[in-house]
Amino acid sequence: MDGTARTGVAIVGLGGAVATTAVAGVEMMKLGGVGTEGLPLADVGGLVPYTSLVFAGWDVNGDDLAKAAEGHGVLDHRQIEAAGQALAGIEPWPAVADPEYCRNARGTNLVAVPALRDRVAHIVSDLRRFRRDHDLETLTVVNLASTERWPDLTLPALASAEGFESALDADDAAITPGMLYAYAAITEGAPYVNFTPSASADVPALLELAEQRGVPVAGKDGKTGQTMMKTVLAPAFRSRALTVDGWYSTNILGNRDGEVLDDPASLSSKIATKGSVLDDILGYEVPDHVVRIDYYRPRGDEKEAWDNIDLVGFLGQRMQIKVDFMARDSVLAAPLVLELVRLVVEAQRRGEGGAQEQLGYFFKAPTTRDGSRPEHALYRQEQVLRDWIAAGAA
Amino acid sequence: MDGTARTGVAIVGLGGAVATTAVAGVEMMKLGGVGTEGLPLADVGGLVPYTSLVFAGWDVNGDDLAKAAEGHGVLDHRQIEAAGQALAGIEPWPAVADPEYCRNARGTNLVAVPALRDRVAHIVSDLRRFRRDHDLETLTVVNLASTERWPDLTLPALASAEGFESALDADDAAITPGMLYAYAAITEGAPYVNFTPSASADVPALLELAEQRGVPVAGKDGKTGQTMMKTVLAPAFRSRALTVDGWYSTNILGNRDGEVLDDPASLSSKIATKGSVLDDILGYEVPDHVVRIDYYRPRGDEKEAWDNIDLVGFLGQRMQIKVDFMARDSVLAAPLVLELVRLVVEAQRRGEGGAQEQLGYFFKAPTTRDGSRPEHALYRQEQVLRDWIAAGAA
Amino acid sequence: MDGTARTGVAIVGLGGAVATTAVAGVEMMKLGGVGTEGLPLADVGGLVPYTSLVFAGWDVNGDDLAKAAEGHGVLDHRQIEAAGQALAGIEPWPAVADPEYCRNARGTNLVAVPALRDRVAHIVSDLRRFRRDHDLETLTVVNLASTERWPDLTLPALASAEGFESALDADDAAITPGMLYAYAAITEGAPYVNFTPSASADVPALLELAEQRGVPVAGKDGKTGQTMMKTVLAPAFRSRALTVDGWYSTNILGNRDGEVLDDPASLSSKIATKGSVLDDILGYEVPDHVVRIDYYRPRGDEKEAWDNIDLVGFLGQRMQIKVDFMARDSVLAAPLVLELVRLVVEAQRRGEGGAQEQLGYFFKAPTTRDGSRPEHALYRQEQVLRDWIAAGAA
Amino acid sequence: MDGTARTGVAIVGLGGAVATTAVAGVEMMKLGGVGTEGLPLADVGGLVPYTSLVFAGWDVNGDDLAKAAEGHGVLDHRQIEAAGQALAGIEPWPAVADPEYCRNARGTNLVAVPALRDRVAHIVSDLRRFRRDHDLETLTVVNLASTERWPDLTLPALASAEGFESALDADDAAITPGMLYAYAAITEGAPYVNFTPSASADVPALLELAEQRGVPVAGKDGKTGQTMMKTVLAPAFRSRALTVDGWYSTNILGNRDGEVLDDPASLSSKIATKGSVLDDILGYEVPDHVVRIDYYRPRGDEKEAWDNIDLVGFLGQRMQIKVDFMARDSVLAAPLVLELVRLVVEAQRRGEGGAQEQLGYFFKAPTTRDGSRPEHALYRQEQVLRDWIAAGAA
Ligand SMILES: NC(=O)c1ccc[n+]([C@@H]2O[C@H](COP(=O)([O-])OP(=O)(O)OC[C@H]3O[C@@H](n4cnc5c(N)ncnc54)[C@H](O)[C@@H]3O)[C@@H](O)[C@H]2O)c1
Ligand SMILES: NC(=O)c1ccc[n+]([C@@H]2O[C@H](COP(=O)([O-])OP(=O)(O)OC[C@H]3O[C@@H](n4cnc5c(N)ncnc54)[C@H](O)[C@@H]3O)[C@@H](O)[C@H]2O)c1
Ligand SMILES: NC(=O)c1ccc[n+]([C@@H]2O[C@H](COP(=O)([O-])OP(=O)(O)OC[C@H]3O[C@@H](n4cnc5c(N)ncnc54)[C@H](O)[C@@H]3O)[C@@H](O)[C@H]2O)c1
Ligand SMILES: NC(=O)c1ccc[n+]([C@@H]2O[C@H](COP(=O)([O-])OP(=O)(O)OC[C@H]3O[C@@H](n4cnc5c(N)ncnc54)[C@H](O)[C@@H]3O)[C@@H](O)[C@H]2O)c1
Ligand code: NA
Ligand code: NA
Repeated sequence: MDGTARTGVAIVGLGGAVATTAVAGVEMMKLGGVGTEGLPLADVGGLVPYTSLVFAGWDVNGDDLAKAAEGHGVLDHRQIEAAGQALAGIEPWPAVADPEYCRNARGTNLVAVPALRDRVAHIVSDLRRFRRDHDLETLTVVNLASTERWPDLTLPALASAEGFESALDADDAAITPGMLYAYAAITEGAPYVNFTPSASADVPALLELAEQRGVPVAGKDGKTGQTMMKTVLAPAFRSRALTVDGWYSTNILGNRDGEVLDDPASLSSKIATKGSVLDDILGYEVPDHVVRIDYYRPRGDEKEAWDNIDLVGFLGQRMQIKVDFMARDSVLAAPLVLELVRLVVEAQRRGEGGAQEQLGYFFKAPTTRDGSRPEHALYRQEQVLRDWIAAGAA
Repeated sequence: MDGTARTGVAIVGLGGAVATTAVAGVEMMKLGGVGTEGLPLADVGGLVPYTSLVFAGWDVNGDDLAKAAEGHGVLDHRQIEAAGQALAGIEPWPAVADPEYCRNARGTNLVAVPALRDRVAHIVSDLRRFRRDHDLETLTVVNLASTERWPDLTLPALASAEGFESALDADDAAITPGMLYAYAAITEGAPYVNFTPSASADVPALLELAEQRGVPVAGKDGKTGQTMMKTVLAPAFRSRALTVDGWYSTNILGNRDGEVLDDPASLSSKIATKGSVLDDILGYEVPDHVVRIDYYRPRGDEKEAWDNIDLVGFLGQRMQIKVDFMARDSVLAAPLVLELVRLVVEAQRRGEGGAQEQLGYFFKAPTTRDGSRPEHALYRQEQVLRDWIAAGAA
Repeated sequence: MDGTARTGVAIVGLGGAVATTAVAGVEMMKLGGVGTEGLPLADVGGLVPYTSLVFAGWDVNGDDLAKAAEGHGVLDHRQIEAAGQALAGIEPWPAVADPEYCRNARGTNLVAVPALRDRVAHIVSDLRRFRRDHDLETLTVVNLASTERWPDLTLPALASAEGFESALDADDAAITPGMLYAYAAITEGAPYVNFTPSASADVPALLELAEQRGVPVAGKDGKTGQTMMKTVLAPAFRSRALTVDGWYSTNILGNRDGEVLDDPASLSSKIATKGSVLDDILGYEVPDHVVRIDYYRPRGDEKEAWDNIDLVGFLGQRMQIKVDFMARDSVLAAPLVLELVRLVVEAQRRGEGGAQEQLGYFFKAPTTRDGSRPEHALYRQEQVLRDWIAAGAA
Repeated sequence: MDGTARTGVAIVGLGGAVATTAVAGVEMMKLGGVGTEGLPLADVGGLVPYTSLVFAGWDVNGDDLAKAAEGHGVLDHRQIEAAGQALAGIEPWPAVADPEYCRNARGTNLVAVPALRDRVAHIVSDLRRFRRDHDLETLTVVNLASTERWPDLTLPALASAEGFESALDADDAAITPGMLYAYAAITEGAPYVNFTPSASADVPALLELAEQRGVPVAGKDGKTGQTMMKTVLAPAFRSRALTVDGWYSTNILGNRDGEVLDDPASLSSKIATKGSVLDDILGYEVPDHVVRIDYYRPRGDEKEAWDNIDLVGFLGQRMQIKVDFMARDSVLAAPLVLELVRLVVEAQRRGEGGAQEQLGYFFKAPTTRDGSRPEHALYRQEQVLRDWIAAGAA
């Protein structure tokens, strides 16, 4: 594969902080302004080149990406200038949205049709037009939209592929916008990545559909800051037989993602994906595991995560660790998004459909094929990923 | 093997904080007061049981271990009471020492003979008496003495086994007390563990000797607090392509170990073993890696390590992590010492002599057979160790 | 005044962590085991001596104070032993309580009478008996009970002394248990200290009554940890023209006080008293001031408060300060309680009744006579207090 | 006084980070781009306006201030642009320097004459030309040069004004460059501010001279970050009877100031001025007060100061506070420099010569007239300053 190959990436939430950062990065690479520093798989051969990616997508906010990037305050002055022209040329398509599922996300760039089947048709026609206009070789869909409220997974609408089809016909309120995008992607044969904590493709109905159609899907909830650190530290505590008696985590963030999480319904989706990580790694239930996420404007996109860890060691003696991670939320996320796109394209090339378990490395709540508990330890996930990559090269 | 088997452990620095904590732990296990919580390999079969260990050793300070433990302030009130009687019955043998190599360690419980060969003979007779008196099945020697000044490794005395023998005859000042204990252990066929940053057995001459005699040796410098954390975090940063632009580490500790490190000569041995870990893991030279160790009395044995890490991510954007580890220094060290004893006994059982590379998991500066750079990433070291253990069981 | 003088202190919440710590401290002073270290006004002449204090009081939990102290884990082994006998001799009287106002506080040591007037009579008879039995010279009442839900201050019952009397007759649900104790104290002429964030005497009705009767009252909510630090740091930021753009505060605590604050109603009383401190000191509204209190068991009484402060300096440049205060909650509180008792006794001696504004130094939400905004800067409060003390000496 | 009045400010170290930040700020004010935010005395009437200040001065580095500012990385992109033209017009005069007293400061913009009297003459002629060219009403000199090694204050050269004159004649090596600038300023009747930890005017000889000539002098070592925090926190600990058992302070900074402090001689001057602050405020000697300053490049001008404070409270119970101050070193310093200039001009207007004790608020090691221990508590210093200001207005 070469740099002229056309790998389409249709992003839900195209005007968001993570999306604009990912797009700006690739546009700067195309211009030769930046290299592949900060990209975890830059050294891996055989994947489509970063510069082969072409971006488009939907957002409830219709601003072009230059304007959006300006607002997010992630890129610096010089970077906005460098990527500005390319970004200004990208305008989000009208989006499918539902305030029932995401209260704080607001915008006017909306698809006017209410019926679910019509909404799907709209998304499908966007994808086809994108494919045609850019003569794309492959097309992936990535969910980077604001976090949606968690649905009731036991409803028949979400329990089977068949139930989902009937629910679409019936305009069933159980179906979220995120599921419509996922459904459209899968039926169009486009690999689908869910970087958000929303249910989206991660419901039995859509996983079944992806399996049937042989379309790769990956999710859910990008593992970037505090949770990534947990999956690095907890295995070491286990290894050294240091018992975790409590782990208190608080996050302060001031970007739009943080504003959305001020809605308790969206927040609980987020916290759910953060939750079981520790117990799964440690092999016992941590008696006190508290996770807080607070919107705090001055922090902007520079999310800060403060952790206090209470450990019990030999002879029952107690220790404490404090970790303060002053991260750039979108800067951590964007390279993972780019790698995920390259990897689901590769999975499709290999003919591997359904939930891509080998991509657990990228997610807080990795999807498993059989619903079993996923591996969470970062280094083990990396091993699985590297093995899968190597297997393809062989 | 059963609990009645007699595994002798002769400790250099028997009255120190780490040694008394390790001994107290085993004595409490023997009394049934504590279980095997906090011991990393408690789940591994086939190693000698913790309760088979019998302790003795040398210290320049002649206080019995109950009195020593009282002074260290590591064990709590209740634990001192529980282990008190057993500890009171253990008195360190007179030690071989040299103020040239460790200025701040002071004491009067000293072997009066100055000639090196006589000193070795003294140590050897201690070991034989210990073996005899307790009818030991196996005997190991563990170095837990205060850190010595770093010697000049290029001197002929330290370069070959032959050179070392001549140097012993000549009372060569290049030979440190730590080396005498190691030499005695090796010539007596006793596996030797160097938990300190002192050179000790970790010089070409003694490694050659251990190889010749088929005696397992392991070292050096137990990996407990800040450095352990580095070998957990750095692999993750590398994995996520986060470049470490600087890492500032400061340690404050107020135990006797800290006092000794107030001597710049001892300190530089310690800092040397902490040094190259990062670069080796990351695969590039960290431009600013600063390590400070300061004696600070109020902290006592509750060492505190504060780290600031400067990271550069995607698009050159900067992030910071602060880690504050409020550890119990000796509580982290003691279980590692107990596991090391069990593992070198196992190596001897398997007939594996010389530097035990599979034990790198326990050390800041793991000895390698051929002097090549060791693996430092904790999870990879653990894999190597677990594989070695499994290989023996098979 | 001398040490044999009898200053009675009747504590609401006598079995609580703060109360037992205060009582234990005085009992140890009486035994000569500890001096006056840690007591802010130990150097001030003219106040009743600490050792003149005699303690009694109410608690919904009937355990004697030795047993209570055991449970709180504030005093160390040695201290429990030293004060044990004295503490074992103190048993709380049955208490007046109401789950409507404090859900999480549970116990069986309760006054069985439901009518408000009968409850007041019960409290009054306790006070009189205490006075008589110990031949007390003076008697004060201190509220150290669990935090109650905040009442509606606009209700007629709380708006005037007259309204309050009618409400008592009518068993009006607007009256909290905390108010009954305060009412009883005031009508008995006993100075009253409210160390809790509960409304208690800090309602117009009872302040009016205290004024009428010439009884000193002081409150509210002891200023010990994070808020004290705020009233130390904020004046400095103002002085140096560093604008506070945001202040994020989180508290984790695992004592019973923390459990009670897990009830959102009690929590909101607590957060209310913490709230306005910053704006009042700085002279502008801090755009983002977030305060969190979380129950987190492993912390026990060793409350931890983590603060992130965002500052804007010269030329609009941004700075950050992080403060991590690992306090002993009750150890900070107990000496303030002892000083407050001595100071309200002094106020009564001087014939000064009503709200004691000069005691703002001790409180998060100092009561003012005219409802005006109180001074919050610690050093200014200290000046006011020292001036008042000096004025009495003159 | 009005904005057109001409207040000359001749800065030693004009191209440094603090100096360029101060100059840029005033130039932006003149252009109307920024207001007086961040200036502690912006609300005080009667002082010369900020915009009346005209800057010039010396630096061993001859770059104009635009280029210098570019290098320091203190001002942001937008600010460099705004102030650029004004800054580009300011070029440092050749400086008087001596590698014996400041090893790491290097440059080629040097006064070639070696004799001390000639050097003084050179500085004096610079000052006269500056006064003339700008038709200055008043002229002050501010020391913002790199920290010099500490001199031997007991030498006759530094002990009296007379001794100093003889030493000048004799080209005595006891006299530092910093003293030459101070001497020139005083003899020219120009108020002199020493913002650095160098001895400079703060030697008996020059204080005597300033007194004789009635010229105000102020110093020494601007109190900006960690030390300022100490003088805010320590009075509160004292007030609350919390005993400071230890205080560990480490500083990491990566600007040129930090590089200079990598020279142990310069460093010890800096640490000396930081030292006694705590003990003076607390009234007892803190058993363990450790101060570290480390050069750490990634931090740049964003100095980071981490403090660990060990406290002992009521009943001997222990607590800890950690403070992490991520400051902008020059941003904290520049406004203090501007206020100091306005205040020494005011002192001169009032005819007050010699050491200006009322300016202790600005300094780590405030000069006192009689060599007595200065007041260090920030709030008391502020009171003294505000009283002095008010006295002048009256
Ligand atoms: N480190 C990280 O940033 C990180 C990590 C894990 C997960 N995530 C998740 O990634 C997502 C994006 O994060 P972000 O920081 O870019 O958030 P953001 O708020 O900046 O972007 C979200 C975008 O989605 C748009 N949007 C909302 N509803 C939509 C809809 N129905 N259709 C189309 N667009 C819609 C919004 O207008 C917005 O532009 C969030 O769900 C976040 O929780 C981010
Ligand atoms: N986490 C840890 O505690 C840790 C980690 C890595 C390495 N270490 C190393 O382990 C060693 C022991 O640490 P510690 O905290 O117990 O120190 P310690 O100071 O409490 O104990 C050292 C003991 O060695 C004795 N000693 C000194 N010279 C001796 C000699 N020549 N012969 C016999 N005894 C001698 C001293 O008297 C003392 O009792 C130190 O070298 C330390 O650097 C400790
Ligand atoms: N630093 C501090 O500890 C601090 C600071 C400010 C305020 N306070 C306040 O002081 C109070 C006491 O704190 P604590 O840590 O001792 O709490 P605690 O929970 O240990 O003690 C409270 C006691 O009050 C008792 N109680 C509850 N309702 C009662 C009633 N109606 N009558 C009589 N007793 C009753 C409880 O049984 C308990 O023993 C709390 O309100 C707390 O918010 C504490
Ligand atoms: N917060 C603060 O920044 C702060 C606080 C207290 C004290 N100080 C002191 O202020 C001084 C300036 O700090 P900075 O950060 O601007 O440092 P800097 O290194 O950026 O500037 C010092 C300047 O002095 C120049 N210089 C050196 N020797 C000289 C000489 N003999 N004559 C003329 N110029 C000379 C250097 O070339 C440099 O441009 C330092 O001494 C520092 O210790 C700074
Ligand atoms: Na140790
Ligand atoms: Na500086």
